Formats: sequence, C-alpha cells, structure tokens
Amino acid sequence: MSSSTRGVRIVRFADAAFRSNEDTVAIEEPLEIRISGETLAITMRTPGHDRELVAGFLLAEGVIADKNDLATITYCGRVGDEARENTIDVTLAPGVKPPIDDDTGMLARRGTITTSACGVCGRRSVDDLLEAANPLVTTDRVDPRIVLAALAGLKDRQPIFAKTGGCHAASLVAFDGTVRGTHEDVGRHNAVDKVIGAQVLAGTAASPAHVLAVSGRSSFEIVQKAFRARIPVVAAVSAPSSLAIELARRTGVTLCGFVRGRAMTIYAGDAIEGS
Amino acid sequence: MSSSTRGVRIVRFADAAFRSNEDTVAIEEPLEIRISGETLAITMRTPGHDRELVAGFLLAEGVIADKNDLATITYCGRVGDEARENTIDVTLAPGVKPPIDDDTGMLARRGTITTSACGVCGRRSVDDLLEAANPLVTTDRVDPRIVLAALAGLKDRQPIFAKTGGCHAASLVAFDGTVRGTHEDVGRHNAVDKVIGAQVLAGTAASPAHVLAVSGRSSFEIVQKAFRARIPVVAAVSAPSSLAIELARRTGVTLCGFVRGRAMTIYAGDAIEGS
Repeated sequence: MSSSTRGVRIVRFADAAFRSNEDTVAIEEPLEIRISGETLAITMRTPGHDRELVAGFLLAEGVIADKNDLATITYCGRVGDEARENTIDVTLAPGVKPPIDDDTGMLARRGTITTSACGVCGRRSVDDLLEAANPLVTTDRVDPRIVLAALAGLKDRQPIFAKTGGCHAASLVAFDGTVRGTHEDVGRHNAVDKVIGAQVLAGTAASPAHVLAVSGRSSFEIVQKAFRARIPVVAAVSAPSSLAIELARRTGVTLCGFVRGRAMTIYAGDAIEGS
Repeated sequence: MSSSTRGVRIVRFADAAFRSNEDTVAIEEPLEIRISGETLAITMRTPGHDRELVAGFLLAEGVIADKNDLATITYCGRVGDEARENTIDVTLAPGVKPPIDDDTGMLARRGTITTSACGVCGRRSVDDLLEAANPLVTTDRVDPRIVLAALAGLKDRQPIFAKTGGCHAASLVAFDGTVRGTHEDVGRHNAVDKVIGAQVLAGTAASPAHVLAVSGRSSFEIVQKAFRARIPVVAAVSAPSSLAIELARRTGVTLCGFVRGRAMTIYAGDAIEGS
C-alpha cells in the first residue's frame, strides 16, 4: 500500500527571518475508477483504503446497494508501473446495471480530469498541464509582509463568512498590496474561479505580480487554476497537498501555506523577497 | 441576482439545554455550465458572480485563453423558472474549439451530477435523490453527549492530520459511542466514501443507529452520502450549506453543525435525544 504522507524541504518565514527545514504533507494522487475497463470517475485522493473509497463512492452514486452487487474490485495495470496503484477496476455482479449516459450510450463519467489509456498518476497530471502551457518565469519579488497582510485581511473581506461561519474565500492581491478582488463560495475552487474570472471578463486575464490568497488548504486544483491564470504566487491559510507542491515546483508557481499571523511556510518557488 | 445567504430555524444545544433560534447559512445551489446549449459541467456553488465563475472555470480548463475567446455568457431558461438562474450558456468566439471527448465525439463533461433537460436547481437535486431511495425513518435516539464525544475524539483518530496539519477525516460512531471506523483523506468526500465503503465491504452497508462525524463543513454531497448509506445522523465541526439542510430535512437525516466542545447546532431532524 502506498504511504499517505511525504517529507518535503521547506523554508519557514517567522520572526522576520527565513530558515530551511523539513515538513510533512498529505499525499494527493489521482485515482481512476473503472467499471469493466471503462472509466467512470477520476478523483484526487490520499492513497490508502482505495477499495473502501470505491465501494463507498459506488454506493453514494446509487450504482450498488450492498456488497452483493460487487463481483471484484482490483488494481489494474502492470506491476512496477507508477500508475498501477492509481487505477481500480470494478466488475459488477450479474444483473447490476452500470450507470449509462442516455445521450452517449457509454458510462456516465464523473470527475474533471481527462483520462489517458495508460492510467493516471500525479506526475502525468503535471506533465499534461505543462504540455498545455509554459512554466511561469517571474522576476518580480513580493515582500513577505504583503503576503501576510493579504491573508490577514481576507477575513475582513468575507461578508458571507461573517454571517454564516462557513464559506471559503479567494482574493487577488497585487505585489504592492492592492486588493484587486475577493469572492466567497461554499466551494473553494469556485471562489478561485470567480476571482480569476472577474479578471478575464475585465480583459486582464494574465495576472503577473499578484498573489492568489485562499482560505483553507491548497490542492492540485488550486495551483492549476493559478498556473492557467499566470498568477505567480499562491498563499493559503492551511496546508498544501503533495501534488500541489509538485505542480507548483514544476510550473514555477510560488506556494505558501500556513500563512497565519506573522509566519508562513514556503513550499515552492522563489518569488518571496529574501527567501 | 440571487442572495448568497439564507435564514434558517435551528435548535442550539449548549450548557446541557436545547433552545430554538434563528441562524444564517451560505446558500449552495447547482450551476449548470453549457457551451452552445450542451452541458459541460455542473458545479455546486454559492449564487452570485456566476459569469465570473464560468469565465474562470473555462480559463482553468484551458477552453479559453482570454476574454476574446468568449462571444456570450448568458443565463438561459424561461424567466420565472426556478432553474433559470442556475443555467448559464456560453457561446465561444469563432475558431475557439470546445473540449470534445475523443471517445464520444461530444463535449467532455465535468461534474458528478446527472443533468436533466429542463435545467438544474437544488429542489430538483433533492427530488432526484428521493426518487432513488425512501426517506429515513429513525426511531432510535442518540444522547447529545455521544455526538459531542464523537467529534471531540476525531482529532485523536487522525494520524495524517497530526503529521501534516492538513487532512480531512470522517468517522462512523454507533449511538452507544463505539467507533466503527475512521478514515482520512485530502478530500472530505473521499474520507466519507472510505468510511462508508469499509462498511459495504464488511457486508454491513446499512448503518442505522450511527453518527457520521466529519471534519470541516457539510455540503449537499456529504448528506447525500449519509442518506444513501442510511446513516441517520451527520455531525460536522463546521457549518452546513443551505442545500445540505434542505436535503437533510427532506430525507430524514439529522444534521448537526458547529459541534465543538460542549455545544452544537441542530439544523434538521429529531434523532438527538431531548431536542
């Protein structure tokens, strides 16, 4: 079984000084769920207990009612292939109908990631993105105090959170500290889409010399959205996943986590002044 | 424009007593994104700034590069239809290719919810689920102190969170306080799938007289998973969305939020003893 955490080298900013250190992050890897060889869904998950994940997913989607509706749940792919542990094939018991899309006559697919014939893995997900766009090259640097202030001020720009105590937010902040926009949403990825989309509609799609400040954690998807919008810095209140860090490192995005009070951890990139 | 928050009647449990009160929650509603009339994605979002959301989503997915690739972004459906504000149709500029699935020759769809010809809305999403399964009828009651203890103990059962400071967890706890299983994952919905899937694989798919304890917030999807697994109580550390509450009320799931220390808020259901 794959491990669920991984050690990473980081730079910690605290007491106005930078120090290199080791940190531990939760692993995020894609899991492809197939029914009789055909892709049903791809979900970003932490490896471990994948068979349980698949059984629970199929129950929630109404594909199975109980264990008796499952014939087999097995990892597929060749042993030694990096993608082997990220693809699970399910055979349903005789008489159990797979979810078919009326329009296409094929499996009604779930998930946001395009599949490839040879299975999925984090490295390939990053490769696919880099085929579509060049890595960011940022020469501008941002004062770490601007990044701290961007996150510290986020709560003040969250009227929905203030009323409900439960809503994500994302904010686009220029390297000089100017707040370009803030949006809230029950979905963290939606809040990011709204902030970036507002720039697109204003005709200012590419956002160099900006920080994307997000409440909560940062996943592959959040870094992907920053990269596609050419935003060089992602700063989050909480932890990043392993795949968010890997994607940030390979695409040139500077990734900060645990940005709280007067301290933060830098997981990738060199856009923070003095780091 | 739709509102982003809604008032709800709740019961607050604190200082060992129950009191009725009013609370405010963030609205969650499905948004269907279409390209030239064909469904591309359905996302659960907070209404407001939907055009921005769509523009940002299309940029992140690589469908558009900037504003010039967009011809129109308009709400579709008939005025007065409940679903009107939940469906947006995009026309791409001439020469901009929509994302086509090589296998089907149709749009490569995103999202986990099946669409219907007449548009999406929260009420219909709930209706669809109730067509697939009967509401829960629970005669058993759980001591509120068991629910508090289920959440208070969750942190102690989170080795990945202890190492990383960033990972969700879900736990299945019997009404007598017995912990049946706990799983962690970078995705909250995956942690729930793993906990429920473990019961499925053990041949104990239906889980009456149990509490599903989850870190973070509760959305439509979390209540859906509990309902399909026939778990009568969902208890979360943070806030529920409007649609989580609506789904819980109509399916007979008891929904608790802000379960912290010796207090919690009951948003739906009557399975908490004395409430």
